[in-house]
Amino acid sequence: MKHYRKELWFEINNRRDFINITPEIDLCLSESGISEGLLLCNAMHITSSVFINDDESGLHQDLETWLEGLAPEKPHSRYKHNSFEDNADAHLKRTIMGREVVVAISKGKLDFGPWEQIFYGEFDGKRKKRVLVKIIGE
Amino acid sequence: MKHYRKELWFEINNRRDFINITPEIDLCLSESGISEGLLLCNAMHITSSVFINDDESGLHQDLETWLEGLAPEKPHSRYKHNSFEDNADAHLKRTIMGREVVVAISKGKLDFGPWEQIFYGEFDGKRKKRVLVKIIGE
Amino acid sequence: MKHYRKELWFEINNRRDFINITPEIDLCLSESGISEGLLLCNAMHITSSVFINDDESGLHQDLETWLEGLAPEKPHSRYKHNSFEDNADAHLKRTIMGREVVVAISKGKLDFGPWEQIFYGEFDGKRKKRVLVKIIGE
Repeated sequence: MKHYRKELWFEINNRRDFINITPEIDLCLSESGISEGLLLCNAMHITSSVFINDDESGLHQDLETWLEGLAPEKPHSRYKHNSFEDNADAHLKRTIMGREVVVAISKGKLDFGPWEQIFYGEFDGKRKKRVLVKIIGE
Repeated sequence: MKHYRKELWFEINNRRDFINITPEIDLCLSESGISEGLLLCNAMHITSSVFINDDESGLHQDLETWLEGLAPEKPHSRYKHNSFEDNADAHLKRTIMGREVVVAISKGKLDFGPWEQIFYGEFDGKRKKRVLVKIIGE
Repeated sequence: MKHYRKELWFEINNRRDFINITPEIDLCLSESGISEGLLLCNAMHITSSVFINDDESGLHQDLETWLEGLAPEKPHSRYKHNSFEDNADAHLKRTIMGREVVVAISKGKLDFGPWEQIFYGEFDGKRKKRVLVKIIGE
């Protein structure tokens, strides 16, 4: 069994944003030399997310609006977590969007349907944060 | 390490529905010859879901009502994604329900609790769509 | 390839609660002797959850309040699932929180960011319920 590990660092200038990290994950897969197996990609922070969806800007605006409706940022005082922090909403938004994705690796490629793309979802940005890529297989 | 891959195709006649795909997944596992490992089952489309819950029709009606409350289909114009499409709500519903499940394989079986069943959740149906099954192990 | 399996049993005295199970998972990893691979930890019941977030009591109160807002327990009659049961809300809450986590194992450790902790989320407690830990790797 082969195994591969890499940390990817991101610094988002806004509090919230979605960025397509599929090219970086593809590079990891090439580096790994693994052609059959499973790839795990997870946020290493609890106020960010890794998820799979469509790379379409209207949808990303819909996601932002929808998540703000389900878990509003403000007033910060609405959350008990926010006595010394202001990011409770980021924990909740990341809960909706998910921490991780697991992707099949087949014939050396991310085994995706036609529109699947991997995104890093930032909900408490303006600082450097990490994503972990772990691949096992052969 | 052994590995196995299969695509399962579904065509749901309604826009939304849940179908129990546990028997199909069991067949994949038998075909694979793998007795210890991990099984990934994911929607290959970004408007559908694979999830684990109870096979109980009342609950499925509750899920439909609840998802419509959290991410209503109409009016289609409420979503920016819907300039050329009408399925933004399907992207959001699938986000709640999840893209994938990872299941332990132990002694040649899906290692499930008493009520766990795998479902395909369709949120933008009336066309053929795919689910991927990938198993690695020995 | 090595593989390891363990069931962890929990009995929560309340209907709902979150408990940090990271120490138990760490023990499983030590027992497994696996240093590189993937660890799956999932609820074996469909009214409970395994998830990763912060071990901060204010946040846990926020999660409880937020989940009650998104999927209220009462009146029990609001859900079709509740003809012979009263736990439909638990199925929905667990859907938001997720069934499982997949964690990278690197150099014999849970490969976590600084604040990641694994929780068992109970939404229909007052009875014994199980979590499955499966690890594969080498």
